[in-house]
Amino acid sequence: MKNITILGSTGSIGTNALEVIRNKSSEFNVAAMSAHYNHKLLIEQIEEFKPSYVSIGTQNGYEEIVKKYPDLEVYLGNEGLKKLGTLDEADIVLTAVSGAVGIEATIEAIKKEKRIALANKETMVAAGDLINNMLKKYKAEIIPVDSEHSAIYQSLLGGKKDEVNKIIITASGGTFRGKTLEELKDVRVEDALKHPNWSMGKKITIDSSTLCNKGLEVIEAHQLFNVPYDDIEVLVHPQSIIHSMVEFNDMSVIAQLGVPDMKVPIQYAFTYPDRVSNKVLESLDFKTLSSLTFDEVDNEVFKGVEYAYLAGRTGQSMPAVYNAANEIAVDQFINGNIKFLEIYKVIKNTMDNHELHPVNTLEAVIKADSWARKEAARIIKTYVK
Amino acid sequence: MKNITILGSTGSIGTNALEVIRNKSSEFNVAAMSAHYNHKLLIEQIEEFKPSYVSIGTQNGYEEIVKKYPDLEVYLGNEGLKKLGTLDEADIVLTAVSGAVGIEATIEAIKKEKRIALANKETMVAAGDLINNMLKKYKAEIIPVDSEHSAIYQSLLGGKKDEVNKIIITASGGTFRGKTLEELKDVRVEDALKHPNWSMGKKITIDSSTLCNKGLEVIEAHQLFNVPYDDIEVLVHPQSIIHSMVEFNDMSVIAQLGVPDMKVPIQYAFTYPDRVSNKVLESLDFKTLSSLTFDEVDNEVFKGVEYAYLAGRTGQSMPAVYNAANEIAVDQFINGNIKFLEIYKVIKNTMDNHELHPVNTLEAVIKADSWARKEAARIIKTYVK
Repeated sequence: MKNITILGSTGSIGTNALEVIRNKSSEFNVAAMSAHYNHKLLIEQIEEFKPSYVSIGTQNGYEEIVKKYPDLEVYLGNEGLKKLGTLDEADIVLTAVSGAVGIEATIEAIKKEKRIALANKETMVAAGDLINNMLKKYKAEIIPVDSEHSAIYQSLLGGKKDEVNKIIITASGGTFRGKTLEELKDVRVEDALKHPNWSMGKKITIDSSTLCNKGLEVIEAHQLFNVPYDDIEVLVHPQSIIHSMVEFNDMSVIAQLGVPDMKVPIQYAFTYPDRVSNKVLESLDFKTLSSLTFDEVDNEVFKGVEYAYLAGRTGQSMPAVYNAANEIAVDQFINGNIKFLEIYKVIKNTMDNHELHPVNTLEAVIKADSWARKEAARIIKTYVK
Repeated sequence: MKNITILGSTGSIGTNALEVIRNKSSEFNVAAMSAHYNHKLLIEQIEEFKPSYVSIGTQNGYEEIVKKYPDLEVYLGNEGLKKLGTLDEADIVLTAVSGAVGIEATIEAIKKEKRIALANKETMVAAGDLINNMLKKYKAEIIPVDSEHSAIYQSLLGGKKDEVNKIIITASGGTFRGKTLEELKDVRVEDALKHPNWSMGKKITIDSSTLCNKGLEVIEAHQLFNVPYDDIEVLVHPQSIIHSMVEFNDMSVIAQLGVPDMKVPIQYAFTYPDRVSNKVLESLDFKTLSSLTFDEVDNEVFKGVEYAYLAGRTGQSMPAVYNAANEIAVDQFINGNIKFLEIYKVIKNTMDNHELHPVNTLEAVIKADSWARKEAARIIKTYVK
């Protein structure tokens, strides 16, 4: 029985994780769970999964849960989230919260030498240097939950570290694949929120349409697998069936394929190095599959990948700046304050204005993150007429 | 440095193996080599690779080589082939001869606890039970060279044996993919010899067009990987880019991909569990790749797979009979004595007439093989007008 803490249980990854657990209760148990806003759904989840600890981001949610469950240990806010990363009762911490708060909880979990099922991109993007240093000291392990990184993780089993030629991260290309700059000028938020293959949260769906998501994944892959940026390639593969690949030095390519379903990589992060069957997981039917195609990224239009390589190769605080500027820009795009293509401008301008510094402490990560958020917001104000 | 014996150095696999070795002389050395008929090419190979031992199938070839190389140890015929399987100087024996003679040499190499890079289908198809029994006794190991089985071997690294849901063997579908029974009635030998993706010998190219090659691979996969026939699936994939796949119990599919080039699996069989770079190996360029498609086998037209499942599930001597009957039928088709679709009839009729017996000894394998050859020849006589 694996005891699992789910940070972010009401989001897309969180609810998928609970579906994995629900359908394999002989293997998995929920030790603790947290939510940010949605305390109503959290209460439903408490009813079903009966965790010993919960944390909630809002004061009114906190009060309602405490009143309803007098015997439950209930925590509040970021401190609660960090606390949940440290519980002795949990073997695995799934960090499925988005944003910088995920980093702190991950750090706590590393100190407690947990397995971390990592679904929080910021952790390795903004704080990769710090986390990798910590992993040298503590016997914690990080298993990626992102479908691409899970695919790479699985494909890497086909050879040795020093036999890797390159990592090939596949990209659906997002909602706007094939579109020109002209066509994207006045694109609406609703259009950007339609993802062809994956059902995900708003932020990540926009990131998918800008290819910033893929950019973040490039940086994350670099940090997770210690592979140089020159050996990481992004390949557009609109069907999202091949989740990513590894080319070894003998030109043999190992790939992981499957239906686009986050439950597979979530469960793999729980069970690795084992695999288990689960009735909620679906077999890929090749016989009814449409053809699989591949294409280059259109870097002229979609700058998300190019800027990520730039940030990654610059290193130090720049990936954190790329990430934070993008978060602010996407937020302002969703709120209708900037246009789609201005997301790239915000990222680039913020990066251009940044004074690089190392990120070997959490404070340094937060400093870079906060600076970039402020700077991006300032830049956006200059756009708004 | 790995010392390699190549049984069948002048054939398609043999020459590819030599190209691997030629371009990576820091890793590989030819200890011994054998050829059947083509002593002229063998002499060229001796000049270049300077083996310590050779074997040749013909008397005049033997005499010419002995005269030309008085200091070389030269052997003749099947006995010579078996002798080459036993050399202390060799770490690896590549069995790239076709037909039943490959089995005997493999048995000798197993007794000497060699690594066997197996490119001889008959070994596991006709003598799989015997070989698997021997592998329990001797510390030999078999690494498959067939691109499909190499792909499966590599994909299996992604999980544990008892986590395998199914093996998916891909098939190009051969030259006649999509053709109807009517269209295949009077098809010519020259047409059957045109393979879309792989450049191979005559016999195997015909086998590819009948899908008997795929049938043999199903039986071979069953014997090599100890996977039940119900968990082995054949999938038509005309582009031959995905060389085969494994679906694990969590519905994660691991695949091996690459340009269709036998040099990759040949070298892998030499270097496993390591991989090495080799300038003769080509990277797969996904960006210029046509789309990858998948389809079911048309079992109404191409009976090669169906009859192989029948033979495999029947077990004992039946796979040897399937294999031998097919060899005779293909030979007679190439010689213009039977029609394309009669190949299936010969196989089925021979199998129907067979009295099953166990194949736990080489004698039993040879008995089944000889009986089937005679019976197939007898059946063919009844067709010829």
